[in-house]
Amino acid sequence: MLFDTITIVGVGLIGGSIGQAVRRRGVAKTVIGVGRDPASLNQARACGAIDRSTLDLAEGARYADLVIFCTPVDKIAGQVRTAASVCKPGTLLTDAGSTKAAIVRDLEEGLPSGIHFVGSHPLAGSEKRGPANASADLFEGRLTLVTPTPRTDPDAVRRVSDFWRALGSEVRTLDPESHDWALALTSHLPHLAASALAGLVPPIYRDFTASGFRDTTRIAAGDPVLWAAIFRQNALAMRDALERFTNRLDEFRNAMMDDDETTLIELLAQAKRVRDALGS
Amino acid sequence: MLFDTITIVGVGLIGGSIGQAVRRRGVAKTVIGVGRDPASLNQARACGAIDRSTLDLAEGARYADLVIFCTPVDKIAGQVRTAASVCKPGTLLTDAGSTKAAIVRDLEEGLPSGIHFVGSHPLAGSEKRGPANASADLFEGRLTLVTPTPRTDPDAVRRVSDFWRALGSEVRTLDPESHDWALALTSHLPHLAASALAGLVPPIYRDFTASGFRDTTRIAAGDPVLWAAIFRQNALAMRDALERFTNRLDEFRNAMMDDDETTLIELLAQAKRVRDALGS
Repeated sequence: MLFDTITIVGVGLIGGSIGQAVRRRGVAKTVIGVGRDPASLNQARACGAIDRSTLDLAEGARYADLVIFCTPVDKIAGQVRTAASVCKPGTLLTDAGSTKAAIVRDLEEGLPSGIHFVGSHPLAGSEKRGPANASADLFEGRLTLVTPTPRTDPDAVRRVSDFWRALGSEVRTLDPESHDWALALTSHLPHLAASALAGLVPPIYRDFTASGFRDTTRIAAGDPVLWAAIFRQNALAMRDALERFTNRLDEFRNAMMDDDETTLIELLAQAKRVRDALGS
Repeated sequence: MLFDTITIVGVGLIGGSIGQAVRRRGVAKTVIGVGRDPASLNQARACGAIDRSTLDLAEGARYADLVIFCTPVDKIAGQVRTAASVCKPGTLLTDAGSTKAAIVRDLEEGLPSGIHFVGSHPLAGSEKRGPANASADLFEGRLTLVTPTPRTDPDAVRRVSDFWRALGSEVRTLDPESHDWALALTSHLPHLAASALAGLVPPIYRDFTASGFRDTTRIAAGDPVLWAAIFRQNALAMRDALERFTNRLDEFRNAMMDDDETTLIELLAQAKRVRDALGS
């Protein structure tokens, strides 16, 4: 048992999965869920993600030893400040947001002494939503990135890393900016591309899609509000990622227009090597 | 039993699946496989896709009532001419290629009288290869597009359509050019985008990919030689599809750079509606 009380702010797919994993693995004595929607909190309780719930963030944070923010990335920093102002000394704060630089830099100053925030991002998720789609296994064998800066308390980093390991995750640390540049290429740009591809197909052509299209665009079913917030928070890295992407598209287009089989095969073979290395 | 003898030229994943479906459903008395690799033909026989095999296209075509070409799109027209020059009057020729205009237009003239070619494209497949990955169910409930022109023999169109229906497929007809424009958006551009995305991720970031990246780039594991041929045959429609795609990417980028939440949410929500309509 690493903690007495853990509070999860935002008990959707990720928060619900954290709650289920904490309870199944005995990582804390009590799990409190904080949310805005009583029905969703009831559902989270019914599916074993939390023991108790409250609509009041301050109320939920006051008795916690660890608070995890699983809310949209543009809400996290503000909620962390609200929680930090009421929670007891020594309370550890972390998050599960898909962007890190804006959140971590925002919270480097002004938190009460003895209250530590450490940025986290578990690389697990789904295009599905809500605690009903949560899974206690979601983090098992997956990677969680923990993003300290030189100013982050080392003991807090260690404790947050231990927490994710206790859920079955592997943990790696890197700085928040590197996280955001990497995730722009591995997650945020693929989401944007999937959305752009899905959005281009007119209704009359929808029957002409097969499994390849379904796979390629699956993540476009994700929540538009959550993803708009991610794109806005990571706009600069995304601009660079988009430029690399459109340059690569231009290479393909030029090779097609030149009927240049050799270059087309090279471009496709290089992509295949990357994809094959990841496994199915 | 629709045919006495069916010959499948190219017994890989698609050709092997056709053979298995034909034999399981009793669509023909005998299935002959034509290929270049004796080991692959032996494998096709071992997994129930064909009864007999030959390395000689003319030999395989001579006794067939239906010949189906499941070879790379840039090989099909030439092989059809070779087969047409030796097969018996009344033999029906079709294919399973992912592009149609270049193949169908090439074959509109010069076939021996009484020998009919009808273009087909079953919208089913996989990034995997070879008869070992074939499945007799591959076409069940899927759509096959049959692409006649005003000059195509109507009886041949009917018989080819009946053949695909006998494998469990639904059939729709449309002209070859419409097929290629539609498939550029629903299949060829998604493949190109998946390859471009996969190719951008440097080795140090590969561990930072999760299920979203895997889904979005899965088809990039497809055969580079086959896909280079598809891109070359459909280069004009692909140029248009790429232009629409990069215009959409620009809309996303401009909205990000302007921190325009409303437009980002609209773009993402429109894509989500398309994707949700397809189901998982």
